[in-house]
Amino acid sequence: MELSLSGERFSAVYDLSGAREEAEARARDICLEQTVEFPGDLIRRQDIREQVFGRLVSLDSPAPDRHRARIEFAVEVAGLELTQLLNVLFGNISLKPGIRLFRLDLPDSLAGAYQGPRFGRRGLRELLKVPERPLLATALKPMGLSPEELADLAHEFALGGMDLIKDDHGLADQSFCPFDERVERCSQAVDRANQETGKRCLYLPNVTAPADQIMARARKARDAGAGGCVISPGLTGLDAMRRIAADDGIAMPVFSHPALQGSFTVDPTQGISHGALYGQLNRLAGADACIFPSSGGRFSFTPDDCRDLVDGTEGPMGGIAPIFPVPAGGMSLDRVPDLLDFYGREVILLIGGDLHRHGPDLVENCRKFARLVKD
Amino acid sequence: MELSLSGERFSAVYDLSGAREEAEARARDICLEQTVEFPGDLIRRQDIREQVFGRLVSLDSPAPDRHRARIEFAVEVAGLELTQLLNVLFGNISLKPGIRLFRLDLPDSLAGAYQGPRFGRRGLRELLKVPERPLLATALKPMGLSPEELADLAHEFALGGMDLIKDDHGLADQSFCPFDERVERCSQAVDRANQETGKRCLYLPNVTAPADQIMARARKARDAGAGGCVISPGLTGLDAMRRIAADDGIAMPVFSHPALQGSFTVDPTQGISHGALYGQLNRLAGADACIFPSSGGRFSFTPDDCRDLVDGTEGPMGGIAPIFPVPAGGMSLDRVPDLLDFYGREVILLIGGDLHRHGPDLVENCRKFARLVKD
Repeated sequence: MELSLSGERFSAVYDLSGAREEAEARARDICLEQTVEFPGDLIRRQDIREQVFGRLVSLDSPAPDRHRARIEFAVEVAGLELTQLLNVLFGNISLKPGIRLFRLDLPDSLAGAYQGPRFGRRGLRELLKVPERPLLATALKPMGLSPEELADLAHEFALGGMDLIKDDHGLADQSFCPFDERVERCSQAVDRANQETGKRCLYLPNVTAPADQIMARARKARDAGAGGCVISPGLTGLDAMRRIAADDGIAMPVFSHPALQGSFTVDPTQGISHGALYGQLNRLAGADACIFPSSGGRFSFTPDDCRDLVDGTEGPMGGIAPIFPVPAGGMSLDRVPDLLDFYGREVILLIGGDLHRHGPDLVENCRKFARLVKD
Repeated sequence: MELSLSGERFSAVYDLSGAREEAEARARDICLEQTVEFPGDLIRRQDIREQVFGRLVSLDSPAPDRHRARIEFAVEVAGLELTQLLNVLFGNISLKPGIRLFRLDLPDSLAGAYQGPRFGRRGLRELLKVPERPLLATALKPMGLSPEELADLAHEFALGGMDLIKDDHGLADQSFCPFDERVERCSQAVDRANQETGKRCLYLPNVTAPADQIMARARKARDAGAGGCVISPGLTGLDAMRRIAADDGIAMPVFSHPALQGSFTVDPTQGISHGALYGQLNRLAGADACIFPSSGGRFSFTPDDCRDLVDGTEGPMGGIAPIFPVPAGGMSLDRVPDLLDFYGREVILLIGGDLHRHGPDLVENCRKFARLVKD
């Protein structure tokens, strides 16, 4: 049966290392490895060669050992499934060294098949009624506190003027801190503080959970009055986040956390770029904001990595809205001016442990944080 | 509220690079980063320090720049959720260089909470009625063929004596090869061949799919008479595989495919070892067999990587059964003797494209493959 695909294509941009000839061979290999996975010389059917094979459309060499290849794939090869799109972009070639997915470039027809962020930057600002300034966030921790103790923390953070309070991403459904009780108590505590302050602080519980429980957690969060949720797509699969974000019965802001995803970005010669993974793929999968370890903290991202990530959160992407970068991972009050210089106003600053370092009055510490951003 | 955890612990073994002092600092950092994620000096509560912090129990240095740390975590920190277990083992530290998860070591109480492989090596051999010899597998490809064409291939492969015929992992639910039609036609074709041969070849469709469709695909496979399924946990999330494997209504053999997981193993100084990721974690998540790119093919695994992987598929693991290694990724008939030397009898040999290289009679090519294994 002769194939007759639409001819519409999406493209993936890969950074390749090694000599030019080696890179070109690798680029041609990607065209087969990511589609037919079959020796090219054994495929005699012209329709498969022309329509199913990936197509190398350019190979630039900014340096003798650094190359950038653009490869186009038929949209039908990925279909409308995020799991298969990921597979075409980087499935088998994740097993080969020297290849890094730098960007994806989807035609409107394919990008439009994904709902993307329900709120995005603009929607989140409207929800919080904060039209312009950088947003302020903190995390409930350390693990080991009871739901009651975490709720007390949440109350103080909300009184102190935080816009967003998230569960630490290690809070799951542990016996010493059950999900249901934590979500109820913390939602109520933040709600109580909002009534006192007149503000709209949102509490974001961590709904990362086993495959058969994750939707129930997100719904429970919604029912308990939480203001959004945090999920680690590296732990659940990226499509589990998309499913939550696209569910009209949940309809809450979704923050992504990078747990387990670091292996894709930590080695600059392979994996997926910060912009593509934390930016573009998170957007496609419906995150409204992307938490990541900023340069200058406990982790290893460089300023260039962070710039690339921000580019992925806001670069043009077939009508999919920009989302907030959330630099975190050991940020401190004394770094706020630098962070604002670097990220500008379209940012959510997340400071966790350091808020506990400035004396026992957490409300006052939060206010200090807020003043740094307003000044 | 004072914590009172059981005191039972699981451990993770990490390989660390760098000087000994640096490695020790990194090991101590893991104890906090993977649990409280909080500055240690700010946690004064003795119960959290003693019960929630990870605990460094040994640090060996086989070479001045190579170190192996064993760190214990309270079982309650991971709870009984695979997503949170992954998070504790390697969530945040995936974002730091120079750390590789080498093995996990679970007490029976924790390992016993996971069903593990429903069949494992022994169960799969019983199902196939092949008690001793290495098993023979191939794949339906290339992408671009219609369900009817793939079913014709499946029929020939089954007539030729293959034990297992899997979908290529890039076959999802594309418009040119819809899942439902493919599964029905291929299941029937293999069933027809089995009636002719009297053997029990199993057809394994690829059920990798979006989060809201994956269970339906697996059930459809079951209802259509398929003999098992293939899933890429790197694309769906590891727990989605566990859910399928544990579902008593599905109850079919599950083969894992490594798509997108390569970034965890490709750089030997970071990520997760082949044994832990493709072996141990796949077992915990219910795979009965683990497909991987063997050394000597199109990919980059070394013989040592493959040995480590096999160790992970069969090493002691709290009552969780051994599973089959399935070396693949560009294997050929002429390599079969080497493969048998290397892997022994407890293996499934998967040859795809090369079966098409030995003349147009696929039935005869399969028989040639089978003779190589029997001789």
